Amino acid sequence: MPAQFPDVPATPRYRFVDDYSEGAHPAVLKALMASNSTQETGYGGDAYCELARQHIRRHLGRDDVGVFFVPSGTSANAISIAACLRPHEAVIAASSGHIVTRETGAVEASGHKIINVAPLDGKLTPQSIQRAVDDNWHFPHMAKPRLVYVSDATEIGTVYTRAELAAVKRACERNGLILFLDGARIGTALASRANDMTLRDVLELTDVFWIGGTKNGALLGEAVVVKDARLAAEFDFYVKQHGSLLAKGRIMGAQFAELFRDDLYFELAAKANLRAGALSSGIATAGFSVYAATETNQVFAVLPLGLIEVLQEFFVFYVWEKRGDEAVVRLLTTWATEEAEVNKFVDLVQAWAK
Amino acid sequence: MPAQFPDVPATPRYRFVDDYSEGAHPAVLKALMASNSTQETGYGGDAYCELARQHIRRHLGRDDVGVFFVPSGTSANAISIAACLRPHEAVIAASSGHIVTRETGAVEASGHKIINVAPLDGKLTPQSIQRAVDDNWHFPHMAKPRLVYVSDATEIGTVYTRAELAAVKRACERNGLILFLDGARIGTALASRANDMTLRDVLELTDVFWIGGTKNGALLGEAVVVKDARLAAEFDFYVKQHGSLLAKGRIMGAQFAELFRDDLYFELAAKANLRAGALSSGIATAGFSVYAATETNQVFAVLPLGLIEVLQEFFVFYVWEKRGDEAVVRLLTTWATEEAEVNKFVDLVQAWAK
Amino acid sequence: MPAQFPDVPATPRYRFVDDYSEGAHPAVLKALMASNSTQETGYGGDAYCELARQHIRRHLGRDDVGVFFVPSGTSANAISIAACLRPHEAVIAASSGHIVTRETGAVEASGHKIINVAPLDGKLTPQSIQRAVDDNWHFPHMAKPRLVYVSDATEIGTVYTRAELAAVKRACERNGLILFLDGARIGTALASRANDMTLRDVLELTDVFWIGGTKNGALLGEAVVVKDARLAAEFDFYVKQHGSLLAKGRIMGAQFAELFRDDLYFELAAKANLRAGALSSGIATAGFSVYAATETNQVFAVLPLGLIEVLQEFFVFYVWEKRGDEAVVRLLTTWATEEAEVNKFVDLVQAWAK
Amino acid sequence: MPAQFPDVPATPRYRFVDDYSEGAHPAVLKALMASNSTQETGYGGDAYCELARQHIRRHLGRDDVGVFFVPSGTSANAISIAACLRPHEAVIAASSGHIVTRETGAVEASGHKIINVAPLDGKLTPQSIQRAVDDNWHFPHMAKPRLVYVSDATEIGTVYTRAELAAVKRACERNGLILFLDGARIGTALASRANDMTLRDVLELTDVFWIGGTKNGALLGEAVVVKDARLAAEFDFYVKQHGSLLAKGRIMGAQFAELFRDDLYFELAAKANLRAGALSSGIATAGFSVYAATETNQVFAVLPLGLIEVLQEFFVFYVWEKRGDEAVVRLLTTWATEEAEVNKFVDLVQAWAK
Repeated sequence: MPAQFPDVPATPRYRFVDDYSEGAHPAVLKALMASNSTQETGYGGDAYCELARQHIRRHLGRDDVGVFFVPSGTSANAISIAACLRPHEAVIAASSGHIVTRETGAVEASGHKIINVAPLDGKLTPQSIQRAVDDNWHFPHMAKPRLVYVSDATEIGTVYTRAELAAVKRACERNGLILFLDGARIGTALASRANDMTLRDVLELTDVFWIGGTKNGALLGEAVVVKDARLAAEFDFYVKQHGSLLAKGRIMGAQFAELFRDDLYFELAAKANLRAGALSSGIATAGFSVYAATETNQVFAVLPLGLIEVLQEFFVFYVWEKRGDEAVVRLLTTWATEEAEVNKFVDLVQAWAK
Repeated sequence: MPAQFPDVPATPRYRFVDDYSEGAHPAVLKALMASNSTQETGYGGDAYCELARQHIRRHLGRDDVGVFFVPSGTSANAISIAACLRPHEAVIAASSGHIVTRETGAVEASGHKIINVAPLDGKLTPQSIQRAVDDNWHFPHMAKPRLVYVSDATEIGTVYTRAELAAVKRACERNGLILFLDGARIGTALASRANDMTLRDVLELTDVFWIGGTKNGALLGEAVVVKDARLAAEFDFYVKQHGSLLAKGRIMGAQFAELFRDDLYFELAAKANLRAGALSSGIATAGFSVYAATETNQVFAVLPLGLIEVLQEFFVFYVWEKRGDEAVVRLLTTWATEEAEVNKFVDLVQAWAK
Repeated sequence: MPAQFPDVPATPRYRFVDDYSEGAHPAVLKALMASNSTQETGYGGDAYCELARQHIRRHLGRDDVGVFFVPSGTSANAISIAACLRPHEAVIAASSGHIVTRETGAVEASGHKIINVAPLDGKLTPQSIQRAVDDNWHFPHMAKPRLVYVSDATEIGTVYTRAELAAVKRACERNGLILFLDGARIGTALASRANDMTLRDVLELTDVFWIGGTKNGALLGEAVVVKDARLAAEFDFYVKQHGSLLAKGRIMGAQFAELFRDDLYFELAAKANLRAGALSSGIATAGFSVYAATETNQVFAVLPLGLIEVLQEFFVFYVWEKRGDEAVVRLLTTWATEEAEVNKFVDLVQAWAK
Repeated sequence: MPAQFPDVPATPRYRFVDDYSEGAHPAVLKALMASNSTQETGYGGDAYCELARQHIRRHLGRDDVGVFFVPSGTSANAISIAACLRPHEAVIAASSGHIVTRETGAVEASGHKIINVAPLDGKLTPQSIQRAVDDNWHFPHMAKPRLVYVSDATEIGTVYTRAELAAVKRACERNGLILFLDGARIGTALASRANDMTLRDVLELTDVFWIGGTKNGALLGEAVVVKDARLAAEFDFYVKQHGSLLAKGRIMGAQFAELFRDDLYFELAAKANLRAGALSSGIATAGFSVYAATETNQVFAVLPLGLIEVLQEFFVFYVWEKRGDEAVVRLLTTWATEEAEVNKFVDLVQAWAK
C-alpha cells in the first residue's frame, strides 16, 4: 500500500523530530491483534483493561487506586485537572509546561486559570511554588491556587530526583495543593541514569499522575492513576464528558497489559535513552555544546547553521532557537530509533568538526 | 493470554448488546499493521490520513471539503458543535438524541444549551424545528437557536429518506440554522433498504457531518466532514483543544483508508443490517411484535419476560422497558455478528412461541 | 430632564407588563441616599451590607448562614448553581423554569446540563423529581442529577405550600440532591393567601435560596442565602468570577437593610398581590376565565381579541398565547401599581362584557 | 440610621485605599432619584439608557456605535472578551493587567487563555505584542492570539499617549488582533496632564472599549462601546448570559446620562487627579521618592516604615511592598477626596521629614 502514497519521497529523511513518529512496538501490536477476536464489554469494562489495571497496580504496589485509560496526553491533563478543581481554583505550572505551551488552552477551556512560574532546569521548586501561593493571596479577587502541575521528564528532558519531588510534595501539603504529574515521558524519566525513583515513589509523592503510552511503545493511550477514592469513583464521568471514553476501550487495555505484563515499558524507555545518550555524547565529543543535560530521550545541542544545513539533508529535527550563526536543535529518540541512523548523524557532526 | 483472565466465564454468552463489542474487521486490522513500521508526521499530517482523506473525498465527489479524524463519537459531536457556535447560540435536538441522553452533558460542558423537541419516529421534522425556532424568540433572554442536530441512523435505528433530510435542510435554511448530522451509524443507514441517499447526498444536504468508524469495522475513529472553508481552516484547533488530536493520527488514517479504498465500509454495514433483518423477521414470524421498523442494525422487539429469561442464559442484550409481563428488548448486530448465533436466538424465540 | 426624552409619548400607556417597570420604593431610595456620604469598605465589606445581613438573619432565625448580594436574578441563579455542582452534575428543573426559558443558557454556559421535567401547576413534585432521577441512571454516559431548581412563586404565579415544599425536599434527600430555590418573587409568594410558609420555613426546607429585591421594592439586588459553611466560605469567589461582586456593595446593602429592618419587604409584596387580586376578581366577575389561580402578583386571563385591542389603547401587557378569537394575557402588578389604573382596566373589561 | 451601626468606630480613619469608597456624586444621585417615579421598559430599553447612549455618542462623535451598560468592571471585561473570541482564541495582556491579577480568572472561566507579557511602565508596546504573537505560532497546538487587552489608565496609574496607543493599534492590525481597552479609569486617564487623547481618539484607536462609571462618580455601571455592527447586534445576548443585564437598566442609564450630559465625567476625574497630584508633590517635596509617575489618581510612594505607622493612625491605604525599612504605599483619590485630608496627610509626611 505505501507505494500508492504520492507525497512520500523515494528516500525519506530520518526523523529525530518527536517521539511519536513510529507506530507501536511489535509486541504491543501483536497483543492488540490477539485481543481482536473476542466480544468484550465496552467503555473500559473489558477483560483487557482489567488485566492492564492489574498489571499497573502490581507495578504500583497498591490495589486500591483507580486506573483510567484515555487516548491522548492533552485529554489526560485536561480531564485530570478539570476533575480535581472547583471553578474558582487555579493551577500552578512552569511557563514551559506542556499545558501552558502546547495544548491549545485546553485547561482554560475547562474554565481554569494557570498561574505561570519560571522553571528552574525545567522544574518547579518548593520556592517557586511558595512564591506563586504568596503572590495569589487577594481573595476573592484572585483565583485560588489549588493544583500544582509538574511533568517528569520535563519539557526539556530533565528529571526530578526523589528528593526534589518529595520537596515539591511537602510544599504542596503545606499550602493545601494537589500535586499532579504529567507522565507523558515518565518511562524515559524512570529509566534515566539521573533518576532515583520507582513508579511506587511517584504514586506516593503525587495525588494524580499518568503513565504515557503514546510516546513509549503504544499506538495511543495514557493511563491516569487516581488515589483519592471519591475522585476515582466519578472519574469516568469526566473521561466521558471530554469525549475520551473509547467504546472499544480494549485497544488501550491490550496495549498497556502488554507494556506492564513484565518490564517492557521500561525496557523501551531505556533504549530510547540509550540512543539519546549516544547522540549527545557523539555531539559533545565533536566539541559542540549540549544545551541541557541529556537525562532522557531529548537532546538539545548548539550547532553551527552550516552543519545544521548538512544534517537536514538526511534528517528531520526541530531548530529550536537561532543564536547568531548557531542554533539550538532538538533531537528526540524512541525505542524504535535505529542505531545506524544515530551513528550516521554523529558521523556527520564529527566530520564537520574536523 | 486470554487464559489468564479470571473474570471471563468458560462459555461466555453471545452479545447483541451494542455494536462495538468486537475489535476491527480483519482487513482493517491488517491495514493498521501494515502501516506500523514507517516514520510518519504526527497529528494527522501523515500519509495514511492523507490517503484516507483522498478516498473519502472521492466517495463524497468533492475535493474541497475538510476531513478530520477524532477518536470517539462524543468527541465528534462536542467538537463540531463547539466549533460552529458562538457562546449564546443553542442546539435543537430530539429529546432522544445521543447528545441529549448519552454524552454526559458534553455539549453543555462546552457552554451550549440544547433545546429538546419530541422526535417523530426518532427524527426531526421541518415542523418540529420550526416550532422550536418559534418558541425561542424572546431575545436576548433566550439562547438563539443556531444548529440542528440529527443522526442517521437515529437512536432507534430508523433512517432519513432523501426527501425528509432535504425538507429538514430547507427548514434550517429558512431559519438561518446550521445542519449537523451525527453519522455514528451512517454506514448502516446508507446500506438500509429504507434508504435512498448516497454519501454525496448527505454532504449536499448538511453543513457538517461525520462518518462513524467505531461502530462499523474500525478499532476507533470518526471522520468529521466540514464544508465551510473558514471552519475547516481552524477545525484542528478545536480537535486539539478537546484532547482529540492523536499524536499517531495514522492509526485512524490507516483504518479509514482501508474502509473507503473501495466499498468495504458499506459492505460491512450491509452485513450488519442483514443480520438484524434476520433477527427481526425471525421474531416477527414467531408472532412477537417488533417495536420500531428494523431499518438498520437495531432490533426492538416486545417479548414475554419468561422468554427473555431463557434468552439471557445464552445472550446479553438490553432490556429496554418493562410493560406488564412483557418487555422491549434491544438487539444490535454488526459486520461480525455470527449467523449461527442469530439462528440460535431465533430458534429459541420460535420454540417458545410454539 | 424627562422633558428632553423624545421617545416618550405625551400620555404613555400604563404598564402591567412586568414587575420591574418602576424604580425603588421611596423608603428604599431614601435609605440609599442616606448611605451615600460615608466612606465604606468595598465589595460587600461595608457597614450597610453587614446591617442588611443582620436584619435578614433575624428574619431567618439563624445567625450562621451566609448572605450574599448580587445584582440580578440570572446572576443569582447561575452563580449558585455553578457553586454547588461539579462539572458532570446536572440540574433538574421544570421546563417552564426561568433558568430554562429566560436566562440565555446561563446555566449551560457554566457547563451544566438541565434535565427538563413537565411542571404540574408550575411546580415540581416528588414524583416528577423521582422520574428524572430514574431516567438518568446510565452512568457515566448520563450527567448525574445533583440539584433541583424550583421557584416560589413559580413562573405562572402559583406558590408552594409548606407540605409541597417539604415533600420536594424529602425527594431530594432520598436521592442525594441539593434543593435550590429561586426567590425572585418570594415576597409575593410568602405574602400570598395561598401560602403557609415563613422565610424560616424556606430556609429549613432548602439548601440554597435567594430573596429577590429587584421585583419587590429595590433598584437592583438579590440576596443569596447559603447554609453550608464550606460553600458559604468560598461563595464570594463565584460572585466575583461571574462579574457580580459590586465594588460599591453598599448600594445593595442599604436597600436590603431598609427592606428587612422591619417588614417593608412583605408589606410591598402584599400590596402587589392585592392589586393582582383586584384585577383577577374584576375580570372573573365580568365572566372571563382566569387561566391559573391568581395566588400572587401575576394574572393570566383569557380575553376576546376585540377586548384586548381596546385595552391595549391604554395599557401595555403581554399577549401570551392566542386561542382562536381569544388569547391568554398576562398582567403583572407591584407595590407601585396604582389602584386607579386597576379600576380603569377592570371597568373596560366589564363594559365590554355587558 | 448610621447611628445604629455598631462596627463603625467613633472617628473612622480616612480612606485613600481605593476609588470606590464613596457613593455617587450628588448630581448623579439626584438624577437617579429624579428617574425613579416613571414606568420604564426593562433591560436597557428605557428612556434614560437611550438618553445616556445619545450623550455618550455625542462625546464620541459617532452615531453608529453600540453602547451597553453593565454593572461591574469584571463583567465588562469578561463579557467583551467572550463576545469577541472563538473558543481557541487567546488574549494578550500585561502580567499586571486587571484581568490577570484581580478578576478571579473570569476570562479563563469563559474558556480563554491569557498570554502574559511583561509590561513596560504598566503598558503594552508594539514590541511586546509582536513577541507574544511570534512566540505563539505552533498551530494548532497553541491557542491563537486574537485580542489585545490594555487599560488606560494602567494598573499603576500611567496613561497611554495617542502615539503609543496608535502604535499598539498598528501592531494589532498587522497581526489580525482585536484591540480591547479597559476604561475603568479612563476618566482620570483622559483628564491627566500626561494625556493627549480625547474619547474620540480612543474610539478610533480601539475595537471595543469601556467607560468606567463605578470609579468616577456613579454608584455602579460601566458603558461598553462596540464599533463592529455584527458584534453590537448580538452583544445583549452576552450581557444577559453573564447575568449583567439589569431589569431596571434605568439605574445605569440615569447616572451615565448625567455624567455625559455635559462634562461632569471629566470634571470629576480632573478633581481626582488634582488631589493625587497634591499628595504626590507634597510627598516629593518632603524628600521621599514617588515610585511611578503620578499621572492620574494613583500615587505610589516609598516611605519609611515608621512614618507609615504614624500615617496609619489616621488613614487607611495599601502597603504594597516592603523594602528593608521602607515600603511602597499606594494612595488613591477620587472626585470626593477632601482637600483637608490631603493636607493633613502631607503635613504628617513633611513633619516626619524635618
